[in-house]
This record gives sequence, structure tokens and C-alpha cells, in this order.
Amino acid sequence: MHARRRTEPTLDAPAPTLEAGLDPTAPCTLHSQISQWLRERITTGDWPEHYRLPAEPDLASQLGVSRGTLRRAVRTLVGEGLLVQTRGRGTFVATTVVEPPLAQRLTTLSEALVDAGHPLTTTVIGQEVTEPPAPVAALLEIDGPRSVLRLERVRHLDGTAVARLVNYVRLDLAAAIEHVDFAAHTLFAALEHTCGVTITSARRRFDAVTAGDTTAALLGISPLTPLLHLEQLTFTTDEVPLEFSDVWLRADRLRVTSHLTRT
Amino acid sequence: MHARRRTEPTLDAPAPTLEAGLDPTAPCTLHSQISQWLRERITTGDWPEHYRLPAEPDLASQLGVSRGTLRRAVRTLVGEGLLVQTRGRGTFVATTVVEPPLAQRLTTLSEALVDAGHPLTTTVIGQEVTEPPAPVAALLEIDGPRSVLRLERVRHLDGTAVARLVNYVRLDLAAAIEHVDFAAHTLFAALEHTCGVTITSARRRFDAVTAGDTTAALLGISPLTPLLHLEQLTFTTDEVPLEFSDVWLRADRLRVTSHLTRT
Repeated sequence: MHARRRTEPTLDAPAPTLEAGLDPTAPCTLHSQISQWLRERITTGDWPEHYRLPAEPDLASQLGVSRGTLRRAVRTLVGEGLLVQTRGRGTFVATTVVEPPLAQRLTTLSEALVDAGHPLTTTVIGQEVTEPPAPVAALLEIDGPRSVLRLERVRHLDGTAVARLVNYVRLDLAAAIEHVDFAAHTLFAALEHTCGVTITSARRRFDAVTAGDTTAALLGISPLTPLLHLEQLTFTTDEVPLEFSDVWLRADRLRVTSHLTRT
Repeated sequence: MHARRRTEPTLDAPAPTLEAGLDPTAPCTLHSQISQWLRERITTGDWPEHYRLPAEPDLASQLGVSRGTLRRAVRTLVGEGLLVQTRGRGTFVATTVVEPPLAQRLTTLSEALVDAGHPLTTTVIGQEVTEPPAPVAALLEIDGPRSVLRLERVRHLDGTAVARLVNYVRLDLAAAIEHVDFAAHTLFAALEHTCGVTITSARRRFDAVTAGDTTAALLGISPLTPLLHLEQLTFTTDEVPLEFSDVWLRADRLRVTSHLTRT
């Protein structure tokens, strides 16, 4: 599923013959036949996302082609975005979904995507000072009118709406948040830099839901689509609750990942 | 959403009057009226899961009852499982779902549930030595017949089927796994203790899917139910892949949680 060291091949075993169906007499070049064979390994799922290709000399020898021919075919697939090469680690099947570590680090979706080199754009659906729903008010430990900023946004990744976010921010702790331009600034950046609030910790809870009418309309999907749903309660210093959010994520575009070690 | 320190109340503000609708002349006792009012706060969602109740003297004074009466009502709701009390931290609205930290720690579902005091039972659906599907074989870096143990289980929590698990374990690394009784033993325990294999790390990936026919039949739910889906690749020493698993979780019974700090 992800990059890792391979076990050493057994040197005394015969190299398996790969059935690439190469035909040196075919009208198309050998490297384009190799490209097509590699493409099929990926599109059929035989080589899943994160699969690391055998080392170049091994694969070239198994295919019965020169390393130069193999390299040229690999370069074609890198250009198509189907393979990725990491210096010193090898060649991997690319992922078609973005995999932010939202459950493992207190980064926001936008921070995770920007870190991963995915530009994203934001549409602000609503931004209003209001009284939150009773359960949110209880978790944020507030009451009364004009107590929170309710912010509703849609995040777009490569032109596709991938997430709907609804945030409630305590105005008594971050008054300046009211007039921030959220098409241009992220919430955590605005809280930390514009409002000078320290974000210390958060609790996140993930479940799966069907999209429902409102979220489906905003994301342009069927109301029955299963979505990852994230609830977050963010704290400032002294464990004072600062912000509550609901986030719906298109699971076909974003998968939450964790790298964990056994202790 | 979870336990935390409360902000100090403003001492010069008048205590808000809670509209508990108490009637000292009613035929039922005052503490049972308070119990009913507390119950309604929870069932209406005004007090959500993880909400911490105001301190006992404050709440008693807001309700206009003695601390003894309030305490008796709270005890009733603790008995009903609607409130939980934690020594030194206060009284909280109980959660109705189990919240394993699967995305944050490399514990298994069974370990997380046992740690949380939830007994679970396991039904083994299948246990056979086989050749895995091609994508799994690629991630596990194996080929050939009889290369893995395929294990399929259903986990029950309080009598309800909450998770379907399908695991593929490399037999060359853990031959003794083949004959373990998985109704009585967990996979990680068997790998570590029966097979003497060291589990070092894993990569987990979460998304949301609809249950589909097979999983729905095993969990006794509709095929359209949205489920949390977890893919896991587990490594032993030297980042050698050891085990691949697919897990489907009933999101209405289990929610994956993380407590995160901002660094």
C-alpha cells in the first residue's frame, strides 16, 4: 500500500518469465508495447496503488528488454501520472486519491493538500454571526445570540468539489474572525495569525454517512453517496473549546491515512 | 465532544434560570422530575455526547433544588447508562457509540474494545490457505499457491455484528497461523505469541463505502448502509509486508477517534 523496502530476491531461483506478450516484429515500438503492458498492470489492479515496481535491471531482464527500453516506457507512464519515481526509493504505482493524514496529525485538510502539492480552491457558501445549534453551543460552552461565526465552505481539488465544511468559531475568543476573507485564507491560519489565538489540540471523530440532499447538492453527487464524515472540536490554551466543525469528504477522492508503529 | 476543563463562570453574572418545569406539588418526587429533565436534555441532543455537566453546586442552584436531590437524579441516569462520572473530572453525557483510536494507535479493533471495557465475540466465517487476489499478492510481495492464510471474521459487540474483517497473512513468515482457533485468539496476539513474529508498523487508510451484498448479509444490515472501510498493510522487521486486511465497520456503532495536538 505504500513505499517500503523490498525483501531481497532469492538469487538462485530462476527469474520468473513475465507474460508481456512482446512482439519485436509488431509495427509499434518495443518501448510502447512495454508502456502498454505496464499500463494494463495498473488499470487491471494487478499492481495496486503504492505497489513498488521490481528494480529496473530485474524487471528489464524478466521482460527480456534492455534497461534503456524499460526506462523509456516507465518515463511515458510517469508522464501520464500512473507511476511516480522517488529518488533512492524506486518507482511506485501512483495513487488516484489524495491521502491526508487527518486522523494522525492536527493539520487541516487544506494544509495537508497544499503539503502534498495539490492546489485547492475554496468557495464560501455562508459566513454569518449567529447562535449555534444547542449541541454545538453545549460543546463550545456558550450561549446567547451573536456568540459564534458560522462558516460554510466547499473545497475544490483539481476542479472537483471534494469536501463540505461547516465551522462554528467562538467570537468571544476570536472576534476578528468575523470579517476574514475565507476564499483567500484558511480558518486555522486566520485564527492563529489574524486573531492571535493559540490552537493547542483537537479531538476528531470519523464515521461514514450518506451524503443527504444539502451536501450532495454542494458537492454535485448523489444524495446516497457514502461520505467520510469528520466531527472536530478544537481547543485553545487551558483546554477551552474554540471551534466545532463538521466536515464531509468525498471518499473516492480523499482517504484518510495513518502510519502507525506498534509500541 | 470530550472531557475537558471548563472555563470559569463569570461570578458577577446572575445564574441563568433553567426551565426545568419543576412542580413541588406534583405526585412524583422532585428527584424523579429532575431525572426526567436530565433525560430530556440528553435525548433531545441539547446535551450532546461528551458534554460535561455544570458543577453540582452550580446546577443544583440553577435548578433550585438541593445538592442531595440533584445527586440522586444524576445517580439514576448513571444507572441508566446515560451519564458517566469520572473521579475528579466530573459528570459527562455518555456516548452511544464505541470510539476506538484506530487511526492514531496501532491497536486492533479487538484490543481497543477490550481496553474500553466492551466485551466482544468473534465468529470465524472462513479460514483457508489460498492464493490471494493479485493486488494483495503485489502488496505482500508474494506469488504462488498456498502463499497466504485468508481469514474472514465477524466481530460482535453486545450481541450486534459490528465489523467484518478479511485478513491475508504471509505463511512463509508465520506458518503456525494456519491452525490457530480465531474464535478464541486475536490475529495480532497469534502472530506475536504463537508465531513469534514482531509487528513493527502499519499503514491504515480509511474511506466510506456502501455495505454491498456480502458485508450486508454478514452484518445483518441493508446493502446501502454507509460503512467505514479500513485497509491495512502491516509490516514486520525491516519493513517486510506481513499482513493485509480489509475491515468494514458499522459507523453507527463504532467511530474512529483521534486526540491530536498542534505542533
